[in-house]
Amino acid sequence: MSIGVAIIGSGIFAREEHLPVARASPDFALKAIYSRSLQSAQNLASGVEGVDLYSEDAGAGRSYADLLAREDVQAVIIALPILAQPEYIKQALSAGKHVLSEKPIAKDLATAQELLQWYTANIDTSKTLWAVAENYRYLAKFIRTAEEVRRLGGVKNFRVSVRSLIKTDFKYYKTEWRRTPAHQGGFVLDGGIHLVAGLRLILGEQEALASVSAQSSLLQEYLAPVDTVDAVAQTKSGASGAITMSYGSAFNDFVFEFDCAQGAVTLNFDRVTVNGEDFEVPFEGRGVNHEVAGFAASIRDGAVQALLRPEQALADLEVMEGIFTSNGARVELRLQ
Amino acid sequence: MSIGVAIIGSGIFAREEHLPVARASPDFALKAIYSRSLQSAQNLASGVEGVDLYSEDAGAGRSYADLLAREDVQAVIIALPILAQPEYIKQALSAGKHVLSEKPIAKDLATAQELLQWYTANIDTSKTLWAVAENYRYLAKFIRTAEEVRRLGGVKNFRVSVRSLIKTDFKYYKTEWRRTPAHQGGFVLDGGIHLVAGLRLILGEQEALASVSAQSSLLQEYLAPVDTVDAVAQTKSGASGAITMSYGSAFNDFVFEFDCAQGAVTLNFDRVTVNGEDFEVPFEGRGVNHEVAGFAASIRDGAVQALLRPEQALADLEVMEGIFTSNGARVELRLQ
Repeated sequence: MSIGVAIIGSGIFAREEHLPVARASPDFALKAIYSRSLQSAQNLASGVEGVDLYSEDAGAGRSYADLLAREDVQAVIIALPILAQPEYIKQALSAGKHVLSEKPIAKDLATAQELLQWYTANIDTSKTLWAVAENYRYLAKFIRTAEEVRRLGGVKNFRVSVRSLIKTDFKYYKTEWRRTPAHQGGFVLDGGIHLVAGLRLILGEQEALASVSAQSSLLQEYLAPVDTVDAVAQTKSGASGAITMSYGSAFNDFVFEFDCAQGAVTLNFDRVTVNGEDFEVPFEGRGVNHEVAGFAASIRDGAVQALLRPEQALADLEVMEGIFTSNGARVELRLQ
Repeated sequence: MSIGVAIIGSGIFAREEHLPVARASPDFALKAIYSRSLQSAQNLASGVEGVDLYSEDAGAGRSYADLLAREDVQAVIIALPILAQPEYIKQALSAGKHVLSEKPIAKDLATAQELLQWYTANIDTSKTLWAVAENYRYLAKFIRTAEEVRRLGGVKNFRVSVRSLIKTDFKYYKTEWRRTPAHQGGFVLDGGIHLVAGLRLILGEQEALASVSAQSSLLQEYLAPVDTVDAVAQTKSGASGAITMSYGSAFNDFVFEFDCAQGAVTLNFDRVTVNGEDFEVPFEGRGVNHEVAGFAASIRDGAVQALLRPEQALADLEVMEGIFTSNGARVELRLQ
């Protein structure tokens, strides 16, 4: 029997990923869409049959609370602006709905930890599940890279370099809350946390990050407060690495490099190279289908799958916050 | 009239560079060679006419002090192991000989500063000149890159990545004092200080380095104590950058990248790329000829040329020592 689900939020990612994935999912039945404005909910639902719309301005019986009161909705997928999410997550969990909320888990570590503590203190976590989405943990190219790194005996040194230029006509730049961010790191948090998730997946638990030291800078004024970070990191086993993430750069790369005990592994865009041998990893979508399937399996099993646990998202955020707050100092990581 | 010069040291760089450059120089007349063993001095001088040999085991009248007592020798070029150099520099300067000593200026900042203080306190610096060699400051590709960076309005972000694998049959690895280094950083100091000199030349005074935060690691046991460093740096104007230097890596690159106000400048081995346009900078030797000519001009002018000043070498060493001692912490740079 399929699980009744609602999509909370009507932004770009909801339109491009959550809506089609939820509709195509054999596990879920899409029952409702909520957006803070009815207009946005209608835009997202355009052409979709049998889905009820909810919003703050939709009138009586159509609020978020009304949606959460529905017995045929057992789960919600929340993709709202970073600052707005925690309250929506709490309300849904309080109403007994399983939650899959988009990354980052919250705008900062303090908010995220408060939210997680609230969850374990107030919700029966064996009955009502909270999962945090991070589609990079499901991307074939990261999984393949992780396997190859393990095969070559583990990481001794690494580099992440992902640089591009977000232009003012970029679809995500047009989102008001992204363009004038009230959260730390601006686009670098929003985009960079994916890269940290990918890196952490490849490093694995054995080589988990132990510290970061970083500098932030702004290359394009319109991307304030920060569009570029450079970091050095050390793993628990003493390997070191460098991380550069820029969304305001004239350079364009997407490279994860690993100096391993038995050679070199490189992920360059969609190509994995192992000691000189190339493997193209076919792009099979952005992984949201696997993520949503994992959410469904979690609900069936009564336990959140490892890759979807809030603790994973918390660990990603800890690295990003360490990078943003370092100002050159060494920041110890304690949640990896 | 040419300047009488002696070469002090008989290692690889003396053989490949100092000897042929000194012999070909219109400014200098090579009078003598000193090495700590006569055998080494003889090896270096093999086939060279009219040059007197000195060493610790060459008998009466053939010691370093005897060489320094010669009135027809006005200058010495010193290329000895890092730990040995300071004493030889002091003796030569005390004997009134102009000195061009090889980089690094000393094994660490304290020794280098003590040496420089000793020089200014004990030697008439207007009469007896001390210059420190750093051939990268004379390489056409760095000078060209610096010009292009200036043309594009200065640096906003940068990366240096130079990685290779020193094998056990590498000529420099066979040098005893390099293979079992008593100086910090091992090969990374010896080789990396050139890269820092190149970076500092490109950044210029306006964008001088202000701090570094770094991690060191060892990828190949036989290159102990350290073969790899990852660093982030910040310039006085707030630009940030990442520096990776490895001599134990499975990767092989030599890249200096600069995100500038008006685009991108890349130095990739011998190729300079400016906003997509490539320039091959022909390799015209390792710059030692320009360096030695600069030393001669300094002697003629009675003042050490800017690129050869010990303060430049001190600034290079400060960056390297900051990288080696950081362990993730922010190290302020005060001599840039």
